[in-house]
Amino acid sequence: MRMVDLIEKKRDGLELTSEEVNYIIKGYTDGSIPDYQMSALTMAIYFKGMTENERATLTMAMVESGDQIDLSKIEGIKVDKHSTGGVGDTTTLVLGPLVAAVGVPVAKMSGRGLGHTGGTIDKLEAVEGFHVEIDNSEFIQLVNKNKIAVIGQSGNLTPADKKLYALRDVTATVDSIPLIASSIMSKKIAAGADAIVLDVKTGAGAFMKTLEDSRRLAKAMVQIGNNVGRNTMAVISDMSQPLGFAIGNALEVQEAIDTLRGEGPEDLTELCLTLGSHMVFLAKKAETLKEARGLLEKAIADGSALESFKVFLSSQGGDASVVDDKARLPQAKYKIELEAKEEGYVSEIVADEIGTAAMLLGAGRATKESEIDLAVGLVLRKKIGDKVEKGESLLTIHSNFEDVQEVKEILYKNIRLSKELVEAPILIHEEITE
Amino acid sequence: MRMVDLIEKKRDGLELTSEEVNYIIKGYTDGSIPDYQMSALTMAIYFKGMTENERATLTMAMVESGDQIDLSKIEGIKVDKHSTGGVGDTTTLVLGPLVAAVGVPVAKMSGRGLGHTGGTIDKLEAVEGFHVEIDNSEFIQLVNKNKIAVIGQSGNLTPADKKLYALRDVTATVDSIPLIASSIMSKKIAAGADAIVLDVKTGAGAFMKTLEDSRRLAKAMVQIGNNVGRNTMAVISDMSQPLGFAIGNALEVQEAIDTLRGEGPEDLTELCLTLGSHMVFLAKKAETLKEARGLLEKAIADGSALESFKVFLSSQGGDASVVDDKARLPQAKYKIELEAKEEGYVSEIVADEIGTAAMLLGAGRATKESEIDLAVGLVLRKKIGDKVEKGESLLTIHSNFEDVQEVKEILYKNIRLSKELVEAPILIHEEITE
Repeated sequence: MRMVDLIEKKRDGLELTSEEVNYIIKGYTDGSIPDYQMSALTMAIYFKGMTENERATLTMAMVESGDQIDLSKIEGIKVDKHSTGGVGDTTTLVLGPLVAAVGVPVAKMSGRGLGHTGGTIDKLEAVEGFHVEIDNSEFIQLVNKNKIAVIGQSGNLTPADKKLYALRDVTATVDSIPLIASSIMSKKIAAGADAIVLDVKTGAGAFMKTLEDSRRLAKAMVQIGNNVGRNTMAVISDMSQPLGFAIGNALEVQEAIDTLRGEGPEDLTELCLTLGSHMVFLAKKAETLKEARGLLEKAIADGSALESFKVFLSSQGGDASVVDDKARLPQAKYKIELEAKEEGYVSEIVADEIGTAAMLLGAGRATKESEIDLAVGLVLRKKIGDKVEKGESLLTIHSNFEDVQEVKEILYKNIRLSKELVEAPILIHEEITE
Repeated sequence: MRMVDLIEKKRDGLELTSEEVNYIIKGYTDGSIPDYQMSALTMAIYFKGMTENERATLTMAMVESGDQIDLSKIEGIKVDKHSTGGVGDTTTLVLGPLVAAVGVPVAKMSGRGLGHTGGTIDKLEAVEGFHVEIDNSEFIQLVNKNKIAVIGQSGNLTPADKKLYALRDVTATVDSIPLIASSIMSKKIAAGADAIVLDVKTGAGAFMKTLEDSRRLAKAMVQIGNNVGRNTMAVISDMSQPLGFAIGNALEVQEAIDTLRGEGPEDLTELCLTLGSHMVFLAKKAETLKEARGLLEKAIADGSALESFKVFLSSQGGDASVVDDKARLPQAKYKIELEAKEEGYVSEIVADEIGTAAMLLGAGRATKESEIDLAVGLVLRKKIGDKVEKGESLLTIHSNFEDVQEVKEILYKNIRLSKELVEAPILIHEEITE
């Protein structure tokens, strides 16, 4: 087999066999296929796509390129959730304790990462003492005991995907739906998921700006999962504005606590119940989605969801008293209101620009070396469709420096008002199961 | 400027500016742009093409990446001819002395190369004593004196093109018309051509199999030449069967002598007169193509074309007496006729397979290290459309080994006969001047 012939085959729109896809990923991982051939292939894939079989084979080849987490000692069906990323997305913090409370095992491997705010681990570290430095056997014990634990990313997971992603990043081949889908799915599968619920964001603040592209990505991932024996479904949810109110690390922990108590923002609560129902259903803890949703609503109402969060925090060294006393979370020095300059209806909240404003305050990392300020961020007071009076607060800026002029300018530019009535966007566009 | 942004721009079908194209070629030549980005770009070019301006800029950037031959001390307009390659193409050997005879300066830089037969230098070395080891000043003196000289390739010509071609070769991006066109034109321009006549082959034995592709390539090259101030035109000529009769080094020298004497194969003669007329016209040695053709026909008829060949050979150490005594050229030990197994009309002569048969006899190099046998090759007795009787010779095999069974099998398989009348193919399909 010669790589140049395989590039030509893909270039001409023909299907690569499983043997050929495996040859490519194996050779690329061990270095016998050079970057310059791989990048030509990925550009050909950008233009010609990949068939269902190619995507499934590519995904499993990347899974097999490195370590695979063995969660077999955890009882029950391990359902993982993945979001394609957005602004102020607090769902992971809510969903873990919520589904754990109804018996779904949550064995979460998480990271830090770049972005508008920190990753899940950064956010949880806003709780004093909380840490993820536990070993594998402790991790498994904790999940079996509490139904939930979080561990830092370790091991050599999907090295082929890492190498390929780094290459795509510098060769303008990131925006390829089959490659995005295979990359995401390979990481979830290598991390040990038996079943997967995907939250595919759509809209201005999401990686996929249009519903059509989001649907294509969702279908590609669902097909891959189901083709390789992992029950997979996707929810396409709105990211035309930030989800919930909070954007920031400690602020999102607060918001998660509110939501677990039944007092969270409407959209965040609804999305968590939707995603959570599918997780409970795929974990076979309920026979219908309706039954699953009932279990989750009950866990919120009777306090068991909140209790699950407390147990989770304290089991990993965290100060669980934050749940009842929010003042114990890191607090920013300044709270500054962004007052509306005129009356009207909120018509647009450009999510990624709002995220950038939060990052400027220190809530996220611009580079790997950046330090995160866990206390700072933004809390929206109004969302699209809301009526605003002149002088009323649009949002609260939580900052550790006083001069937030630059941040305010970005915010004013990206929260737009209209004289006309505006409808709130649809939160959940579609659910895709095949 | 970032290469990844330029790849994305091309991927999305936008036009790169001249500044951007120059940045890319400069960076690729000096190594600051890595192969893996260049191969992603070339694959994007494969799918999205290049505009007229991009192609012209790319060509000149490659010219400027290395040395450029200075032919300014040669009087007159230097017209170069380039053929896109075929089987048994003896035009260069004929055209040089022919147009030199009517005063067009032929300052030819030539090579050896891989293929069915040797390159122009290999062929000329079939004449005892002939050599191209002359220095630049001698080369220029000879052209000014005799109107013709040949020198071996020297200097660091178009290193960007060399590097890029090697990359395209292993990344399935050779078959891109803008890249082929820029590559060919950059080499001609760096070698000092003021004007260029292109012989674009079309048909089964050519790189471009269809007339449409040949036309696209021809137009692309003509546009580049004219855009960068080199008068350029192209003839699209037939390569559905080998040109002329001879395939082999000494055999083609013989055929060139025959043609210069006015006794060559009809198709070879006609193509040389057509290409030659354009060369004479572009060199401003005639005011019309008709006048140019008249001059060439006269040079053949009055012996001055043949005389020009003699002077050329002896000026570079060659034994010019071969022109009057063909027996002084290397002769193969065995001459074996390939007899028709049945009667019919020749319907197909698969040019590249016939070329492969010649290479098996030793006429060409399979690898850089192969030794060429200058004496051997094939001489066709029949061409497409000719009537053949059973037992009549289809061609003569000139071999230095007796057992030519394998070669015969290839030849029988690739010279096909039909019971029905077959028309000879059109020799010259189009002439393209813009």
